[in-house]
Amino acid sequence: MVKNVKKIAFANIPLNSENNIPLYQQLYDGLREAILSGSLKAKTRLPSTRTLAKELNVSRNTVMNAFEQLLMEGYLVGKIGSGTYVAQTLPDELLHTGVIKTKEQKQKNFGLSKRGEFLASIPVSLAQRYRTSLTNTTPFQNGLPAYDAFPFERWSKMLAKCWKHLPRKAFGYGSSAGYKPLREAIANHLATTRAVKCSAEQVIIVSGSQQALDLASRLLLDPQDIVWVEDPCYMGARSALQAAGAKVVPIPVDNEGINVAYGEVKSSAKLVYVTPSHQFPLGMAMSLQRRVALLEWASHNNAWILEDDYDSDFRYIGRPIASLQGLDSEGRVIYIGTFSKVLSPTLRLGYVVVPLNLVDAFSSARALSDRHSPQVEQMVLTDFIAEGYFSQHIRRMRALYSERQEALIEAVKEHLLGFLSVYPSETGMHTIGWLPDKSNDLAISETLMNNQIIAYPLSMYTIEAKLPPSLLLGYSGFSPEDIYLAVKKMARVLEYTK
Amino acid sequence: MVKNVKKIAFANIPLNSENNIPLYQQLYDGLREAILSGSLKAKTRLPSTRTLAKELNVSRNTVMNAFEQLLMEGYLVGKIGSGTYVAQTLPDELLHTGVIKTKEQKQKNFGLSKRGEFLASIPVSLAQRYRTSLTNTTPFQNGLPAYDAFPFERWSKMLAKCWKHLPRKAFGYGSSAGYKPLREAIANHLATTRAVKCSAEQVIIVSGSQQALDLASRLLLDPQDIVWVEDPCYMGARSALQAAGAKVVPIPVDNEGINVAYGEVKSSAKLVYVTPSHQFPLGMAMSLQRRVALLEWASHNNAWILEDDYDSDFRYIGRPIASLQGLDSEGRVIYIGTFSKVLSPTLRLGYVVVPLNLVDAFSSARALSDRHSPQVEQMVLTDFIAEGYFSQHIRRMRALYSERQEALIEAVKEHLLGFLSVYPSETGMHTIGWLPDKSNDLAISETLMNNQIIAYPLSMYTIEAKLPPSLLLGYSGFSPEDIYLAVKKMARVLEYTK
Repeated sequence: MVKNVKKIAFANIPLNSENNIPLYQQLYDGLREAILSGSLKAKTRLPSTRTLAKELNVSRNTVMNAFEQLLMEGYLVGKIGSGTYVAQTLPDELLHTGVIKTKEQKQKNFGLSKRGEFLASIPVSLAQRYRTSLTNTTPFQNGLPAYDAFPFERWSKMLAKCWKHLPRKAFGYGSSAGYKPLREAIANHLATTRAVKCSAEQVIIVSGSQQALDLASRLLLDPQDIVWVEDPCYMGARSALQAAGAKVVPIPVDNEGINVAYGEVKSSAKLVYVTPSHQFPLGMAMSLQRRVALLEWASHNNAWILEDDYDSDFRYIGRPIASLQGLDSEGRVIYIGTFSKVLSPTLRLGYVVVPLNLVDAFSSARALSDRHSPQVEQMVLTDFIAEGYFSQHIRRMRALYSERQEALIEAVKEHLLGFLSVYPSETGMHTIGWLPDKSNDLAISETLMNNQIIAYPLSMYTIEAKLPPSLLLGYSGFSPEDIYLAVKKMARVLEYTK
Repeated sequence: MVKNVKKIAFANIPLNSENNIPLYQQLYDGLREAILSGSLKAKTRLPSTRTLAKELNVSRNTVMNAFEQLLMEGYLVGKIGSGTYVAQTLPDELLHTGVIKTKEQKQKNFGLSKRGEFLASIPVSLAQRYRTSLTNTTPFQNGLPAYDAFPFERWSKMLAKCWKHLPRKAFGYGSSAGYKPLREAIANHLATTRAVKCSAEQVIIVSGSQQALDLASRLLLDPQDIVWVEDPCYMGARSALQAAGAKVVPIPVDNEGINVAYGEVKSSAKLVYVTPSHQFPLGMAMSLQRRVALLEWASHNNAWILEDDYDSDFRYIGRPIASLQGLDSEGRVIYIGTFSKVLSPTLRLGYVVVPLNLVDAFSSARALSDRHSPQVEQMVLTDFIAEGYFSQHIRRMRALYSERQEALIEAVKEHLLGFLSVYPSETGMHTIGWLPDKSNDLAISETLMNNQIIAYPLSMYTIEAKLPPSLLLGYSGFSPEDIYLAVKKMARVLEYTK
């Protein structure tokens, strides 16, 4: 019997002293595989460790280690020395498990839950929908900060220093609301640059605006609640609201921002999502009259306002516009900001300013969903702000991005005049390129994408709104040269000649 | 009129050339405040910039900058030079907004949604419930890796190097599924140390086990779905499942792990959460028979299994136990692991291994909830693993933690013999200290907490199970000296003398 067994299994166990997996483990894996695959039948008596060691030409310790592990895990029974047997507890269902390739799982589908199917069906961004890998390097991807102007050297130094002398308190689990000194630094920054009215306590650190939107949607809305969104709308926000089960009602925007009067006629709502400083994607700022109207509407309808202030640091005329939150006397505005645009999305740091009565709720929800943000990055960012590098970087980027917008406008004048109309934008990192009437922005965007140019069609951001065909053009992430060449390439690809 | 206005407002605008807020901004804030508070009435004509400059003893540019901003934001109308007036668009509702203190918001509560109230009511951990700030520095907090043995120097160097030469692709948004090379490194690590069967594709990077639990709960469960949990159970898992609306049914555990037979009688379930390598908090490993029974149950009931393998790297006898996932031939097991225990919770990196047919769903859900994990940390961790530092660290910690467990057992023998019974645990970072029958572990834990000793009562982790009174004792995060002193202090605080 034993002889026979040897032929079947042991000879086939590939022991390779070259590779870096310890021999006892290779033997353990081989024996376990043989047992699971049934080539080593239940109740089979195994040869003695001495015999097997000779057989396989390995040390006896190697065999004993493997046997011990298998005994401990229940694959073998008995005692080393006085005879070990393959356990008989392995049912047929389990046999062959050991050899099934995970690839075969692709066929199977026990399905997600209904909610799961729904969640999986919502794309968070166009980049995701287009499944492109070009987004970080290709004009005119929007929302990308300037790679070539990031203070890598300084950030690297500060981070290294912080890790090298990491205090014990920062090594374990941190506060779900965030690192207190960072919350204070942000509160100060927002008070002076955005007229945001808040205490440090109201600032909750999150991993970016997406998480802020996810938490706010889950905390403030129940499934089927109605929410207003601007039309056209930022896709990440619309997706988070839908993911929470909300019914999204699109409200048109005009040159003063969201059309509150239209909304009041169209539908009630529990919450409204707006981008008052710089409407995404169209780019206008919400007028004071509209801000007032929106706050009044919210007050009369007991509704929440999500203010997404994603890029207003980059205002090229005057200072950044004062926030809607600062005009709110009732604590109805949830103010969302991010460092993804000012520094880099790779940091995964953002913040949400909530009314005092919601601070605990947001902290708890954050803890439930993923505990807290990395502490070291929060500490470094705090110093980065305190030592003035943050404001300095914003100032530098403001100048740089204004140049880049200029470069885009010039390049378009030179190569696409009469085809693409780009007007200066007072704020932000992208602008809109208007196409000739009746042109198909979807098809044009597709063609450009196939030629490694990213210019998402405005129609992908609209819900019901009918707007002239146009393309989103992000300029902040690309040098004037890149921009010039990309525009030139656009003209060639679209076979446009003046 | 103007004279009068001056008296009311301008004199009161506190301009301080000392502080670091630019004068024009101080003036802007002051005027805006005056308008919003009503002390500057609508239609009031403002003095000329020249007059006001003299009045306030500032440069005319300062005044012009402030005016421009107020005109741009709609607080003033008219034209600089030919007369500027306070806008009349400000309704009474808005007046006084500017001076309301956010503190007053505390009174107000528009309330969260029903779901929000529920989410906010679920504590994710005992540390959170106890609202203690001692958790990162105080024995016997469980789940803390050794601070004094972390390779800060090396990590700091690798991180600095990575940031200094960060490739452009890593500066923008990253993959929601995670950094591919890290997913490969983890797949290899799991294959060799846990007999996990997976391709790199199946490994999704998350911010820690909590996020894995949150995503899995939202994707695999609908509200009201029934799930089995071990009783006693890891609170973070129970919370995530409840947060997703699941009905949690506690299933008792015995020395072989979860009692599948008992569960089959008690209730059906769509999903079961287990800790097979090292039951949390009791510490036993699930027997092979139970693993087989659980897989059969899942197969016959078309149920999911969440396998949380949180600390089995630290196995002091033999190798880490092979995973349940590796025995699963149908793709029903979701395998969750974290770097919080092996390296540090401050990294916020973990992973979940999912069947191939769920890869896209988990990626999308991750994107919706917070996009992706920080890329630089993922890159550094990849190198850390590839260069062998990771396995080395695990080996070193295994030795260290075994010493620390020994130190705990010795100290208890010396100071609490007959009061606290601590048995060696073969795996992990904590063990259980059994108290005398009929003692009140809640009260004892409370007393210890008041004396800066953390020892959570087992009864806080049980749902229906009636277990002997005992305390959770984490030893991994503390030096033998700390442990010795804390045990000695325990004896004093509890007034126990042999």
